[in-house]
Amino acid sequence: MNPFTPLDNLRIVLVETSHSGNIGSAARAMKVMGLSRLYLVAPKCAIDDQSRALASGAADILERVVLCDSLEQALEGTVLAAACTSRRRDLPHPAYTPRQAAPGLLSQAGAGDVALVFGSETFGLANEDLMKCRWLVNIPANPDYMSLNLAAAVQVCAYELRSTLADSVLPLPAFQPARHQEVESLFSEMERVLVAIGFLDPAHPKRLMPRMRRFFARAGLEKEEVAIWRGILSAAEKRKN
Amino acid sequence: MNPFTPLDNLRIVLVETSHSGNIGSAARAMKVMGLSRLYLVAPKCAIDDQSRALASGAADILERVVLCDSLEQALEGTVLAAACTSRRRDLPHPAYTPRQAAPGLLSQAGAGDVALVFGSETFGLANEDLMKCRWLVNIPANPDYMSLNLAAAVQVCAYELRSTLADSVLPLPAFQPARHQEVESLFSEMERVLVAIGFLDPAHPKRLMPRMRRFFARAGLEKEEVAIWRGILSAAEKRKN
Repeated sequence: MNPFTPLDNLRIVLVETSHSGNIGSAARAMKVMGLSRLYLVAPKCAIDDQSRALASGAADILERVVLCDSLEQALEGTVLAAACTSRRRDLPHPAYTPRQAAPGLLSQAGAGDVALVFGSETFGLANEDLMKCRWLVNIPANPDYMSLNLAAAVQVCAYELRSTLADSVLPLPAFQPARHQEVESLFSEMERVLVAIGFLDPAHPKRLMPRMRRFFARAGLEKEEVAIWRGILSAAEKRKN
Repeated sequence: MNPFTPLDNLRIVLVETSHSGNIGSAARAMKVMGLSRLYLVAPKCAIDDQSRALASGAADILERVVLCDSLEQALEGTVLAAACTSRRRDLPHPAYTPRQAAPGLLSQAGAGDVALVFGSETFGLANEDLMKCRWLVNIPANPDYMSLNLAAAVQVCAYELRSTLADSVLPLPAFQPARHQEVESLFSEMERVLVAIGFLDPAHPKRLMPRMRRFFARAGLEKEEVAIWRGILSAAEKRKN
């Protein structure tokens, strides 16, 4: 058993979905981000082979899906429901981007079940259903073409929830950064060899060494790399034609 | 005509895609976030009715797709290539989440073309292709099930780029980033000279060139710096004792 995370309290609620493939793709999108609880409200299609094919390794989510007759039923027991919609309303609820909404959704999910509600592919959510949700979530989109696929919308929201949860900072690869004096002595050696091989004219150095410093500063040197560069400089200096 | 945005310089590069539907879904994912330039490298499928059905309103992206024989060709003229991969490597390049990568990708896209590269559904990207990219992008995922659908991965990255675009991106200091082929030809030259000066044994190359690539990837090369490194290599080669 994995330890509890707020994602375990997140319900993805799909209302009147038409395409069975979208149910499968939504399940996969959920599982890949660590969500597991899928609710279907009055679906216009069955969970079929197409759903299972697109769910791929998320078949377990399809097996544990909760079928509901009404949105009301799917929201039972939740502490917060947010409707994902591209439409703005005359009397808008608080509306957030997924990024703005994620911290609040997760924080509420620490206290109880939270629902993210998605409408049908063609019609979105009815006003009546929107009114049952406390928040609106608007995914930023191209104003010339806002037609986000249903499972893609689930993917974006699930991704935001997971990213915000971890605020995932990738660990740096294990390496040994070089010390200041190792870097400085490499620069001295480099300058000496560049003069020796006739690339740097000490009488007219221009801005070569400052440029080299700038380049190496951007990269940042590891201990082993200092050794490699020292080896290269030494080989260049010894070179015979 | 819409005003220019850095998204116009973003190439989505799909390598050896197997399922035509994914090409269509990726096109839709792009358009909905304002991206438009799709490159296909050696696709294992044709753009067919399934692609067009899933592209929905993004058929124009499919019509203007750029077909390439190799990744090399798809990266021609880019100033930055980032590989989207779930795998971590022995000698990792700089790796970022989409959120961490987005500001840098957009800022570079202000200066030239930037490629986001996605591997095949089954095998991801070959090491050889990964080595041609300067950055890795890892989408945070459920460690128990990391199998993100290809078009879903495109959707997440495109969403991050659009979301970040809205935030303020500090302009880079004015400089001319080197083009992909300039960097590649510098690496060829470097390898040749390192052999010539006796530092690199072609019979036992170990991991020297991958390490050099990694170092240069961290720094990112400017045009003028390519010229400087070429000068240094040439001086090293001609060196007489």
